[in-house]
Amino acid sequence: MSGVNTVRLRLDLAYDGTRFAGWAVQPVLRTVQGVLEEALATVLHLDHLRVTVAGRTDAGVHARGQVAHVDVPVDTWLAVPGRSARSAEDVLVTRLGGLLPPDVVAHRVSVAPPGFDARFSALRRRYVYRVCDDPTLRDPLRRAHVLWHSHRLDDGAMDAAARALLGRHDFAAFCKPRVGATTIRTLEVLTWERAVDGPDAGLVVAHVQADAFCHSMVRALVGASLAVGEGRREVRWPADLLAGRQRDPGNVVVPALGLTLEEVTYPPDGELAARAERTRAIRSAEDVDSLRRDLDAASEPC
Amino acid sequence: MSGVNTVRLRLDLAYDGTRFAGWAVQPVLRTVQGVLEEALATVLHLDHLRVTVAGRTDAGVHARGQVAHVDVPVDTWLAVPGRSARSAEDVLVTRLGGLLPPDVVAHRVSVAPPGFDARFSALRRRYVYRVCDDPTLRDPLRRAHVLWHSHRLDDGAMDAAARALLGRHDFAAFCKPRVGATTIRTLEVLTWERAVDGPDAGLVVAHVQADAFCHSMVRALVGASLAVGEGRREVRWPADLLAGRQRDPGNVVVPALGLTLEEVTYPPDGELAARAERTRAIRSAEDVDSLRRDLDAASEPC
Repeated sequence: MSGVNTVRLRLDLAYDGTRFAGWAVQPVLRTVQGVLEEALATVLHLDHLRVTVAGRTDAGVHARGQVAHVDVPVDTWLAVPGRSARSAEDVLVTRLGGLLPPDVVAHRVSVAPPGFDARFSALRRRYVYRVCDDPTLRDPLRRAHVLWHSHRLDDGAMDAAARALLGRHDFAAFCKPRVGATTIRTLEVLTWERAVDGPDAGLVVAHVQADAFCHSMVRALVGASLAVGEGRREVRWPADLLAGRQRDPGNVVVPALGLTLEEVTYPPDGELAARAERTRAIRSAEDVDSLRRDLDAASEPC
Repeated sequence: MSGVNTVRLRLDLAYDGTRFAGWAVQPVLRTVQGVLEEALATVLHLDHLRVTVAGRTDAGVHARGQVAHVDVPVDTWLAVPGRSARSAEDVLVTRLGGLLPPDVVAHRVSVAPPGFDARFSALRRRYVYRVCDDPTLRDPLRRAHVLWHSHRLDDGAMDAAARALLGRHDFAAFCKPRVGATTIRTLEVLTWERAVDGPDAGLVVAHVQADAFCHSMVRALVGASLAVGEGRREVRWPADLLAGRQRDPGNVVVPALGLTLEEVTYPPDGELAARAERTRAIRSAEDVDSLRRDLDAASEPC
């Protein structure tokens, strides 16, 4: 919660995950959060601040539509240099553009509406996984975010298999286990198609959307899909895995490089606070004893 | 010319130019030609071979539609391993895929039609230069091939300025001089537009097409265009530069990273040999004394 003496800023971010050890700050390792917090602290002349994010992406996962928030002391906010000529938001975007490395971009800074929480107000996260299974379409200029796959894929079979996974289920079979953390999620969208136009023309593309994801979930779902697409597994295999609620050593978690967080969706401004309350309450109700660990896992994607 | 004892292969190539010191082989430096010739020699068990290219891209320039040819001894061609099961062309694509680094892709290998010469049969080369002038559209996943420009651009003014440069002219004002090399070229297309959809939506994009380019020409044309787009120069300035036939120290050659060779066009098969003859003859007629140097420059782009 932002306090009376702080201003909550919403940050809209994009990054190339290739050279990051994921979102979350870690000792020594280069992380998006670490790089961003350092740049923000420099711009705002603060010793320290903490950024909260909608989707805590794993090492190597990219983002085009990431959303975060940070609480800044009111005094600091009013003292942003150069704000006489332009809005402080624009000043921040420009100064971050000069300070951030080229693999992280802050597209927008805005004063968050009341009740906004980048993590708990979010309604859903949408990821895209891109696979190039046609050697004649491999684009070296996009190789950092498209998986080059050496077997041709049956996108129709993959899409059929995906349909059986939709809805609210225990996705334990597709989640890296965490003690006490729930693996129940609502998978709203999982489609596979061979894109016919646009930047992804010819690629086999998954759109994956859920209220939240547990650890490695998207990449495990993609792994099961590829097995079907190659014909190594039956169309019903991913559904069988799901029903088994056990991680199958035969299922592979695919490389992070093909995965991009494209969008985080929030409700209308008037519903932000209620949504955040509800998310917190749902997580609590699921398992009071493991509340803290559960919350940690709530926004862990892919 | 391919001989009676050789088979001429056409290679369709794409590469990310970021980590290359350009196309042409140089001592010590990593070049696309060097990497490709080494991979081909390995696959074909040859000590040495020489690849001829349509567009000798500069350091940092990318290609999606590059075309090259290589002459291979018939014996070698007939001995390509694995050709019983698949065509030797497909075997080569697959084996090159395994040997080439990920920033170079051979999309297709085919036995060239009679008279084909990747360089001299080409009718035209088409380049695209991509500029992002809107900080909210900077995509870190495409930063290796899109120039991030900190001033907003008037694409209408740029396009108007470009129109005055079309046609057959002495482009000395936009060419890095080479003793004895002609700077007369036919600029067939130079357009600027803000893309409204597709992968480049929102970017300011130049399409540049000519029979051939002299050294640094595309990037000097883009430099003059950006000066107009920023409002630093009048719309007529690029045409004035052209008429002056002198390089203006006020004009900047823009960074290579925004430039991609997208396409090389050839005439129908029946006209390939005649086209190659004609190109050679035109180049000769322009300046007999500097023929050799001139030929060297003929396919030097950008």
